[in-house]
Amino acid sequence: MGRLRPWARYGLLLVAHLLALGLGAAALRALEGPPALRLQAELRAALAAFQAEYGACLPPGALEELLGTALRAQAHGVSSLGNASEASTWDLPSALLFAASILTTTGYGHMAPLSAGGKAFCMAYAALGLPASLALVAALRRCLLPRLSRLVAWVTRPWQLAPARAALLQAVALGLLVASAFVLLPALALWALRGDCSLLGALYLCFGSLSTIGLGDLLPGGSRSLPPLIYHLGQLALLGYLLLGLLAMLLAVETFSELPQVRATVKFFASSGPSMAEDQGGFLGQDELALSTAPPAAAPASEQAPAC
Amino acid sequence: MGRLRPWARYGLLLVAHLLALGLGAAALRALEGPPALRLQAELRAALAAFQAEYGACLPPGALEELLGTALRAQAHGVSSLGNASEASTWDLPSALLFAASILTTTGYGHMAPLSAGGKAFCMAYAALGLPASLALVAALRRCLLPRLSRLVAWVTRPWQLAPARAALLQAVALGLLVASAFVLLPALALWALRGDCSLLGALYLCFGSLSTIGLGDLLPGGSRSLPPLIYHLGQLALLGYLLLGLLAMLLAVETFSELPQVRATVKFFASSGPSMAEDQGGFLGQDELALSTAPPAAAPASEQAPAC
Repeated sequence: MGRLRPWARYGLLLVAHLLALGLGAAALRALEGPPALRLQAELRAALAAFQAEYGACLPPGALEELLGTALRAQAHGVSSLGNASEASTWDLPSALLFAASILTTTGYGHMAPLSAGGKAFCMAYAALGLPASLALVAALRRCLLPRLSRLVAWVTRPWQLAPARAALLQAVALGLLVASAFVLLPALALWALRGDCSLLGALYLCFGSLSTIGLGDLLPGGSRSLPPLIYHLGQLALLGYLLLGLLAMLLAVETFSELPQVRATVKFFASSGPSMAEDQGGFLGQDELALSTAPPAAAPASEQAPAC
Repeated sequence: MGRLRPWARYGLLLVAHLLALGLGAAALRALEGPPALRLQAELRAALAAFQAEYGACLPPGALEELLGTALRAQAHGVSSLGNASEASTWDLPSALLFAASILTTTGYGHMAPLSAGGKAFCMAYAALGLPASLALVAALRRCLLPRLSRLVAWVTRPWQLAPARAALLQAVALGLLVASAFVLLPALALWALRGDCSLLGALYLCFGSLSTIGLGDLLPGGSRSLPPLIYHLGQLALLGYLLLGLLAMLLAVETFSELPQVRATVKFFASSGPSMAEDQGGFLGQDELALSTAPPAAAPASEQAPAC
């Protein structure tokens, strides 16, 4: 592989990704095609049975119209069934969770804006809030990562490993810690608390939230058919989980991305031109930019104690 | 602000973000509460009217059961209405779009796995695919960013701006370019092609996709009620748009994040401890790690020509 020209390496990388996309699609079709067809058949049978039994008293299209209204309402978070239809969709916990799902780009979609004003607000909120969130995460990273690394390093010191191995071990340990604390344990708790999902389902929900994929087919907080207090507690718990868990996830990802092994892999695929310099910062070298505009550096601390 | 201790700065930053979350939630409640309540009322009225007119021939609960089935099906992408109910949910374009929505963490949610195998596959696919995608983006960034910067710098050279101003101008120009090419133009095209959404709606859809929020309430590709060929073309167009647009978005974000002004802001909020060193790389300095494990550097190119 080392003898390949850079453009060939890129080509390979891109082709590999497109293949991965195609294979993923094929696997999903194989796994999900049949269950979806079964659900479709079940639905069609239910509709047909309904029409057969009661169709005589229903004018044509009346049922379809009702179904259409109910489905459209659900797409925006308005439930048709039972007591849930009396509570407001946009109560405070729901609105907070929705705002958080925008700022974290999770975007569950179990609720969505109906009005033009709401859609415009969501765009503006995301356009302003996302960069701010990224800046916050960057600042927190600078504060927390060194402390975290020091902690893990202190734990692994007795083993006297070479720096690179130690770094790898630290990253793996951190990854396992984050996975246990923020995926495994919450999933176990969810599974225990909710009667209606398997452990796999609970893991799936937690993973979907923390990866910010946020499919929204099920929410860890439960559905609106639960007693309102429990439902709202669930939403607030999900909110806290999302914010803390994502931060932990980002710190873990950052730790991995700074591993020499990972950097070497990325470098391997990158061009061997001017970008060889780490974080060149665009056209101008980082140093030129820093010298020309950065505010005077704070007094360097000789002790390795972060002040945050 | 400069006189505040670091922990106070952090506190301020965090409080500001929590406030932003709360204010966002309050604004959304004000904007969306009434429309959602109206939709709820409309739905309840439709249900009541239906029951009143035809309830005589329907046993209690029959309608609710049917609605429940239809709603559950929709949550997984199975449509109840019209001809759409005959086509498979997991045809190849749909499966490709779903796989892409996982790898880009957009997660529209208009389709979701039903089976345990499908859920497990999604988790594994994301767990493996997301890091790979991040690595791909990192590699592409190293290749494309310098070229992009050189291009923009060439355009702005006649104005002979100071380095920092030039960098800012370049970033803004790139941001506007990406916004026009990947949000404004596609939204205009969508608005022209589709009869059923306003320009704001089209902008909202494009923005939701590119920010990876992916609420999924509407998909730019249209709904299954369209002729299948058009629907599938729409999905494939969305797929291409998502992949290219996200790459462009990431390059733009990267360019902004490397601006000295942005770096200075992040530094301001970060601790003044050991993290002052750029990209310290965890416990060990970047140099130690690099020296101990990095593969021999490729022959440095004296010409500024990237080989990718």
